[in-house]
Amino acid sequence: MLILELQKVADSINRLIREDDFPGKISPAYLKASVIDYPSRGGKRLRPAVLLWTCGLLGGKTASAKFAAAAVEIYHNWTLVHDDIIDNDKMRRGKPSSHFIIAKLAEKRFRMKPEEALSYGKDFAILAGDIQQGWAANMLLKSADSGVSPVLTIHLSRQLYELVNRNLISGEALDVEMPHLGIGGLSPSKIEKMLDLKTGALLRYCAETGAMIGLGSVKFASDRRIRKIGEFASLSGVAFQLKDDWLGIFGNEKKLGKPVGSDLSEGKPTLLIYLAWKNLDRPGRTKLLSFLGKPSYTAGELETVRKMIRESGAEGRVLKRAEFLANSAKNILLDFPDNKYRKLLLELADFLTSREK
Amino acid sequence: MLILELQKVADSINRLIREDDFPGKISPAYLKASVIDYPSRGGKRLRPAVLLWTCGLLGGKTASAKFAAAAVEIYHNWTLVHDDIIDNDKMRRGKPSSHFIIAKLAEKRFRMKPEEALSYGKDFAILAGDIQQGWAANMLLKSADSGVSPVLTIHLSRQLYELVNRNLISGEALDVEMPHLGIGGLSPSKIEKMLDLKTGALLRYCAETGAMIGLGSVKFASDRRIRKIGEFASLSGVAFQLKDDWLGIFGNEKKLGKPVGSDLSEGKPTLLIYLAWKNLDRPGRTKLLSFLGKPSYTAGELETVRKMIRESGAEGRVLKRAEFLANSAKNILLDFPDNKYRKLLLELADFLTSREK
Repeated sequence: MLILELQKVADSINRLIREDDFPGKISPAYLKASVIDYPSRGGKRLRPAVLLWTCGLLGGKTASAKFAAAAVEIYHNWTLVHDDIIDNDKMRRGKPSSHFIIAKLAEKRFRMKPEEALSYGKDFAILAGDIQQGWAANMLLKSADSGVSPVLTIHLSRQLYELVNRNLISGEALDVEMPHLGIGGLSPSKIEKMLDLKTGALLRYCAETGAMIGLGSVKFASDRRIRKIGEFASLSGVAFQLKDDWLGIFGNEKKLGKPVGSDLSEGKPTLLIYLAWKNLDRPGRTKLLSFLGKPSYTAGELETVRKMIRESGAEGRVLKRAEFLANSAKNILLDFPDNKYRKLLLELADFLTSREK
Repeated sequence: MLILELQKVADSINRLIREDDFPGKISPAYLKASVIDYPSRGGKRLRPAVLLWTCGLLGGKTASAKFAAAAVEIYHNWTLVHDDIIDNDKMRRGKPSSHFIIAKLAEKRFRMKPEEALSYGKDFAILAGDIQQGWAANMLLKSADSGVSPVLTIHLSRQLYELVNRNLISGEALDVEMPHLGIGGLSPSKIEKMLDLKTGALLRYCAETGAMIGLGSVKFASDRRIRKIGEFASLSGVAFQLKDDWLGIFGNEKKLGKPVGSDLSEGKPTLLIYLAWKNLDRPGRTKLLSFLGKPSYTAGELETVRKMIRESGAEGRVLKRAEFLANSAKNILLDFPDNKYRKLLLELADFLTSREK
């Protein structure tokens, strides 16, 4: 049932994004194309699903949450555009990243050398993400046209800035800073705090927003159910991210749509790497760290890293931790009405820790 | 009177920005500092002044427009943070630019080499600007707490995205693209169109928003006065920008707070450069273009460029054009009530074409 229902969500979000006239007047044309690109690439649309289903869970009409659902997806995508610039990622969902596409265009159209073109591509991708942030905010405000009261619409928009924008971007900043802090200064809780900001904040917002629209009034803003359902999503988000980090090293490149090992290339101390490092002796630590930050990895090198992570016990601990968080999330749901949406959200929490892409 | 009243506006905006708790929870600390930095550097606060005075012009209480006024200033500042990254500007209002400050910090704290540190500085400045865009949007939504109806607050927020975000950023993109298009393919109207998007769009929004809050209801959204007052601001904005381009070459570096000639360094075909180029013979054109894109200029080189621009007649034409646009703007105001605010706006339009910094 989950996959079918996710597909329904994706279809409706894809249509809303495709038909929205916001990107219409952007120039030049390749900036417009870049603004439309990531939000139209598909993907799992997990965030809209959480928002729509938590709305349904609390008795709301999911149609009233449709603009908010499209908004969080566009919001998620602008952060990806800027992340890809910062992380120098060349691929996203199996296609070239935004800045990379524009760099290639600049090489052709303006006969720029690769280095200048890359810089031009990044400049334009900064601007594309900036417009997408506005597009997301505008889409959310349309909620006032789909049956959400103006006062609640303003409340939800303010929450987007106060709970998501600051936290999510602080999380991204901490993620960028971490490789420079030295692995010894980290701890599992510091790493999970960063994940909770970077991934949990937006998912928490999705759940709280869906629930608020479901309850239908701003007067429920401090209702216990809002906080609980937010907790469900945030725990699921961290579980998801831990699994994502695992996939980044143990996953299948074809299914993943990006090179396996790119986290290693960026020198990111994921919980997986941190725990492996922590459990190794001095020569083992030196060896593990020597694998961080390489531009690419041979199959043999990847296998060595995998073996070290597995044998240090880190792989098992991270997968267990992800499962524990997903179970904690699911337990929260048991306090909610037993309806179709609860079932979907439970299945979703399972999906997040069992997925292979 | 103008200077005194501008100072009053600046004081009230500075206080609102200083006291707002939005940046409070940002981490790491130097990202928070970066988010607060540009909006706190002062400056002329022209945009808030336009917004508050157009509100007063149409009989509104300026206090009800205070959050909107602070919002447009923060909005303007996030665009500067991203512009400075894109333009590689090291200075802003007499101090180092955002990305440059963080680059220096990264050199010290993380012992990065200058090149890596600059890239780190740019990454963080991208994120700082991203948060500032959210901060501005959040500040605007606070208008619902200062007497603007929720429905009007939503309308004004949507206008910010639909009229400003897309247009302003398209203008910035066209500005970045222009040096690569070849000067022969330009025209005065193409250049002014870009200026109208990049500078005019936000000023038009300031005036329309002030006027809407002044009239007090969303039912005036298509009122002729809204369109006219927007036209006033947009014409003033282009006049301001033409004068700004003039100052970028003929201005006084100390008063300007940034190096004279930085537009030349970036190879930007301003109206000034375009008209000079257009009026020169072939050897003159070659000579003029040879000055574009240098990393810096000696006093002698700058004097040569100034002389070419002056003697080609371009300087006179641009200054006349700026004056004409400012006069057209002022004529529009004559249809509005003759009150204190009209007087201030008339003086402001004069100020924009007579300023020396």
